[in-house]
Amino acid sequence: MAAVTVVSVPTMFADLLGPISGADILSWDMTEAPERADEIELVVVPPFGARWLRRLEELPALRAVVTATAGYEHVQPHLPPGVVLANAVGVHDTATAELGLGLLIAAQRELPDMVRAQDRGEWLAPRVRRSLADSRALVLGYGGVGRALAARLRACEVTVTAVASRARAGDDHVERVHPIDALPALLPDHDVLAVTLPLTEDTRGLVDTAVLAALPEDALVLNLGRGAVVDTDALLAELTAGRLRAALDVTDPEPLPQGHPLWSAPGVLVSHHTGGSSRAFPSRGAAYVRRQLERYLATGSVDHVVASGPRRALAEEA
Amino acid sequence: MAAVTVVSVPTMFADLLGPISGADILSWDMTEAPERADEIELVVVPPFGARWLRRLEELPALRAVVTATAGYEHVQPHLPPGVVLANAVGVHDTATAELGLGLLIAAQRELPDMVRAQDRGEWLAPRVRRSLADSRALVLGYGGVGRALAARLRACEVTVTAVASRARAGDDHVERVHPIDALPALLPDHDVLAVTLPLTEDTRGLVDTAVLAALPEDALVLNLGRGAVVDTDALLAELTAGRLRAALDVTDPEPLPQGHPLWSAPGVLVSHHTGGSSRAFPSRGAAYVRRQLERYLATGSVDHVVASGPRRALAEEA
Repeated sequence: MAAVTVVSVPTMFADLLGPISGADILSWDMTEAPERADEIELVVVPPFGARWLRRLEELPALRAVVTATAGYEHVQPHLPPGVVLANAVGVHDTATAELGLGLLIAAQRELPDMVRAQDRGEWLAPRVRRSLADSRALVLGYGGVGRALAARLRACEVTVTAVASRARAGDDHVERVHPIDALPALLPDHDVLAVTLPLTEDTRGLVDTAVLAALPEDALVLNLGRGAVVDTDALLAELTAGRLRAALDVTDPEPLPQGHPLWSAPGVLVSHHTGGSSRAFPSRGAAYVRRQLERYLATGSVDHVVASGPRRALAEEA
Repeated sequence: MAAVTVVSVPTMFADLLGPISGADILSWDMTEAPERADEIELVVVPPFGARWLRRLEELPALRAVVTATAGYEHVQPHLPPGVVLANAVGVHDTATAELGLGLLIAAQRELPDMVRAQDRGEWLAPRVRRSLADSRALVLGYGGVGRALAARLRACEVTVTAVASRARAGDDHVERVHPIDALPALLPDHDVLAVTLPLTEDTRGLVDTAVLAALPEDALVLNLGRGAVVDTDALLAELTAGRLRAALDVTDPEPLPQGHPLWSAPGVLVSHHTGGSSRAFPSRGAAYVRRQLERYLATGSVDHVVASGPRRALAEEA
């Protein structure tokens, strides 16, 4: 008879998981001390709230920690010796791409002005507005969010060009993925620049004055990645001049303080970093957690290991 | 040598058409008297502005009138004897479905509240919002707009059910099209009701108290068809009770007057009947006009004839 493995999972996923053979699944959001602290081998940490992460250090049987988010930097300092850390891949793609598509349509069709007119009780006169259809979108960063956005854009009759760090073959949505070196030559032929890049030393400030200047008049810049990938001052200059428009799920700084010029620059729509936070997340998060638990039960390890705790030798874990 | 046929086309399309062999294409928006009034055989009427339509009665050689819109009722009273009238099919599908998709995402992800927070300069706290992905949408009316919306919804990971006047086979987007009789049984299993029906004696008030009551709590009603297909009082009762939400491109009455309760009902987003009015329209309208002109040059008639002028016998036209 196989021993039962004790694992903990946040409530939002535990309710969706159902039973997994060979595992006792504790529903634990880390806010209180856990039941069976001596037995827990794997913890899935909650997606919101970092201040209880030190409880990881109180679990003597712990071998693996799994985040349900792409971000894991906040967990790493609390990782006990020899414990591995895995992050989540793909669970936010659907929610983030959906918001990105909504922002693009809202910006092109001027939904913000319609909301303001509705609040005034004023019916707007007929007028031909911009369209997302027939536009040419450059998706900068072609991971999960970039691909999910490309799929949606194609269904909306948009021509899609993908650019990533390195050239590679295409997929169902694009013929090929262009390398970052091709960006300057590609920009003038695109009406939408959709940024889905993570923040790294290579991407910080990548969308700078020169990149923005290469876009044609009236182009729309969407940022779904990280705020600091776009140079805020360079963007503000283009917005203030009325040459470009922007739809920003993420900003630099974030949160935007009261009185920041991005709030009131012309042609900008801000969505308060809500890209990943929709009801599409819990079910996809739970499916990811299930795959990781099944992997752990079968092999004693997890996929997508991004870090491990200090000091204890790898030999001890085997 | 074939005689040259003189036709007139609104400026917004004429600029996109290019030359057509065998036709002299006059750019005419009907606001002024036309050149070559005695020779014009076919008029494409402008999509906006109905008050110059009486000029059709001043064209002795006129044989066909073509609208670039689905609506043609405003042209019919000005149709001279024996002149046929054709309306446009499909030219607004892309623009209307795009706005519909944008309204659905905006409503689910609460973009209106984000716009209002932006105007206050206030960053919203993180919160899990509704999702369009994983929802179940019932598309009521499955013509061009319905199909274009279904294609977009499928790319957004939405389950789509189509309902039309009669049962028929499905397409790339839905397995089958259900008949209108099936509506009451289908409604409780759907989170989104997307109305794309035209206004006829059969559809007026079709979405009434009973239809709305059959939708589950928190469902979203989208109207892209005609305002009077939805019973405004019945919808207002559901909105005021907080049981349903709505995204309305069209309303009854339209335009909504100042102070109308729909402006300020909870959970409603109004887009001022802008569904068809985007830059996706001129190119699709021009392509449609080209097909009709080529058809007229080849056969002496046009497609999609919906009416003809009074009295003159059909024999005279042959």
